[in-house]
Amino acid sequence: MQVLAFDVFGTVVDWHGSIVREMQALYPAVDANAFALAWRARYQPALARVRAGAQGWAVLDELHRAMLEEILPRFGLAHLSEAERRQLSRVWQRLDAWPDSVAGLARLKTRFIITTLSNGNIALLTRMAKRAGLPWDCVLSAESFQAYKPSPAVYRGLARVFDLPAQQLALVAAHHEDLAAARDCGLRTAYVERPLEFGASQVKDVAPQPGNGLHASCLLDLARQLGC
Amino acid sequence: MQVLAFDVFGTVVDWHGSIVREMQALYPAVDANAFALAWRARYQPALARVRAGAQGWAVLDELHRAMLEEILPRFGLAHLSEAERRQLSRVWQRLDAWPDSVAGLARLKTRFIITTLSNGNIALLTRMAKRAGLPWDCVLSAESFQAYKPSPAVYRGLARVFDLPAQQLALVAAHHEDLAAARDCGLRTAYVERPLEFGASQVKDVAPQPGNGLHASCLLDLARQLGC
Repeated sequence: MQVLAFDVFGTVVDWHGSIVREMQALYPAVDANAFALAWRARYQPALARVRAGAQGWAVLDELHRAMLEEILPRFGLAHLSEAERRQLSRVWQRLDAWPDSVAGLARLKTRFIITTLSNGNIALLTRMAKRAGLPWDCVLSAESFQAYKPSPAVYRGLARVFDLPAQQLALVAAHHEDLAAARDCGLRTAYVERPLEFGASQVKDVAPQPGNGLHASCLLDLARQLGC
Repeated sequence: MQVLAFDVFGTVVDWHGSIVREMQALYPAVDANAFALAWRARYQPALARVRAGAQGWAVLDELHRAMLEEILPRFGLAHLSEAERRQLSRVWQRLDAWPDSVAGLARLKTRFIITTLSNGNIALLTRMAKRAGLPWDCVLSAESFQAYKPSPAVYRGLARVFDLPAQQLALVAAHHEDLAAARDCGLRTAYVERPLEFGASQVKDVAPQPGNGLHASCLLDLARQLGC
């Protein structure tokens, strides 16, 4: 195995906790947990519209902004200025890493090429990594292939970029549907437990499921399992 | 200015010296200087054929391999096996950095997003960076835009990826034609002196030319000029 490709939102960074913290600081009257969940709830439907061709290609920064516009009135934030909306919509570039992520990636990087393989756009992933200290060797994105996961074009694109047989690549993710789609393209798969991805009010079932070659409690555990 | 985009071959890494050292170690009977220059002499014509549409899109690893096949007989290396040819053609992934590059990039990275903007393909740039310790924030390539520099699609693609006005971006390169094409797309430009890019037998004229906003003797000098 030569390349470890990582899902990012939820797997490497804590989108729920980061958005909650930013909302509590900026708009303390808003239910930050409900706000974060409402924003993210529009994510899969928005990607599905692009995948289905109902909407032309748009990078995730644009989709996040459009989703934000849709939920602002419901949370009493219809009065936000253009600058405030833009600043808030870019919170996805300022997400904090899970506590094990930086150290885990640093260890995995000693033996493998570590790359993002995220639906986040390249600029979003680059700015996030710079702020959070994520030591990627490479930044690949849905944007690189103009297709959103779980479209096979993304996983096949990864194999084409590295000119490797699919079994030399692994996807690391906290989401079974992402891993299943990667496996359908011949990649190895590693599941990472992130029980608090949606916050403490919606604890995720992280029980092992068949099919994944590796199941890790965090990225440090994954590094240990892979001998790093 | 937010993003510094770097030409790589010749600007950040020493392709001539690296190929000479590898050839001297592997095939000491060959004139390593002539071999390196002959290989690189086929580079611009190969890219020009792709830009002109005379050849379909092919990544640089493929073009390097095809150029290598063309020159092997002339240097008495027609007997190389497939494995030897493949290994040698990948020397471009194993190029050594100029002595100032790693420290210069590390300093520039403290104030700017630093990304490749190279005709090398993504896997080549990723493997090179990992081996040489180049601390890129992002890996962008001709491959990202399916166009070779100096095609405007590459410089405009950079601005589109980062969603920034062109004057927030600068190209750093040791080649005036690359810089001129970037300037035509609105980017700032920084020339870096690499007098030995083609070896000691063909010392390059590195005198300042009008048009470039910055002119640096090396990447540490560029960092100093930019206050890093």
